[in-house]
Amino acid sequence: MIRESTLTSSQLPLILCDIGNTSLHFFDGKRAYKESVDSFNEVIPDANVYYINVNPTLEHKLQERSNWINLKPCVNTEKYYEGMGIDRVMACEAVDHGIVIDAGSAITVDMMDHGVYCGGFICPGIRAMQLSYANISSRLNDSFNFELDLDRMPKNTQDSMSYGFLRLLYGEVMRHRKPITITGGDAALLHRLFAGATVDELLIFKGMKQMISRIASC
Amino acid sequence: MIRESTLTSSQLPLILCDIGNTSLHFFDGKRAYKESVDSFNEVIPDANVYYINVNPTLEHKLQERSNWINLKPCVNTEKYYEGMGIDRVMACEAVDHGIVIDAGSAITVDMMDHGVYCGGFICPGIRAMQLSYANISSRLNDSFNFELDLDRMPKNTQDSMSYGFLRLLYGEVMRHRKPITITGGDAALLHRLFAGATVDELLIFKGMKQMISRIASC
Repeated sequence: MIRESTLTSSQLPLILCDIGNTSLHFFDGKRAYKESVDSFNEVIPDANVYYINVNPTLEHKLQERSNWINLKPCVNTEKYYEGMGIDRVMACEAVDHGIVIDAGSAITVDMMDHGVYCGGFICPGIRAMQLSYANISSRLNDSFNFELDLDRMPKNTQDSMSYGFLRLLYGEVMRHRKPITITGGDAALLHRLFAGATVDELLIFKGMKQMISRIASC
Repeated sequence: MIRESTLTSSQLPLILCDIGNTSLHFFDGKRAYKESVDSFNEVIPDANVYYINVNPTLEHKLQERSNWINLKPCVNTEKYYEGMGIDRVMACEAVDHGIVIDAGSAITVDMMDHGVYCGGFICPGIRAMQLSYANISSRLNDSFNFELDLDRMPKNTQDSMSYGFLRLLYGEVMRHRKPITITGGDAALLHRLFAGATVDELLIFKGMKQMISRIASC
């Protein structure tokens, strides 16, 4: 359970932390920085660390620290779905209306309609797709062409595999005709495809902050 | 170079063979059957074997046999593109107008417009995509749901990954509004998605046969 007192009354500085399987992504209100899971030290004095976590091996350690506050129990589970990644939920919390793309090891695409979550889908990330093609044939061991002509079926191998991944993703996202926000480690790459989109590397932190404010004001 | 005399005058029975990396797919005019590359014996007496081959380790053996005739040199390369798989070319040769899907270790999608090749694209095959999702997270180690609701963004994990693969492929194929023919080992599975499509497991052999007839009549 979340500690109500911590959420509402503490005067300590606030740090946000998004924990993945290999790294912890921090935001102290001014600066975003990463730490490796391997070298991570959970002793952070004189601050409250609000976190989301998909890494089960770290959870026990964090629960022993009174200044680490898990935001997962604060999520309105009825709004989303059982088993939806907490990082996806937080990115959606930051967007009232539009498509949210989180491009990391997987690419998640979620749709918000005036505050209502409308569902979403998952593709393998850019690196995973590249590996998948390379494992099929050495001829497909190539990088993707992000300058691909989206209006024409390709007639060369690199564009054929780029189209089979990027054009299909582009087509599905664009057909919903909604504003697009991209976050995650590959946001800049995908931005080359979705030229009109907004890139926001702090989107998950924005969602976390909004959730904290909402709970604190209750 | 192809032996002109073999193509035009031989009275020997004709066998077609599509050679992949792991197996040889034969068609004797009545029956289609497979042989493993490992147990394959290229001595086939009393028949002309017209073949296409993507397996470089077998090519030398076959070139030593006068009754094995490689169809690759017969392809009009200007019609297609440099480096396009010969199996894709043959499937296209069998379709005058429409979309050709070959669903195997990769899924290739090619478009023909009244005899003109309009380009195509490549996705990883069903098994490769399943592996790709599973490697990202154990939560994504699941099979695809081919009965997926294509009109609604999903709100559960299995449908989210199914949508991220199948719905994106479906959207791109359908937007061209052309008749669809599916071939390859996973044709029956994909047919569940493209209900109006024609499944033709002999499509590549049909293309090979047409090419042989065309050359022979010159």
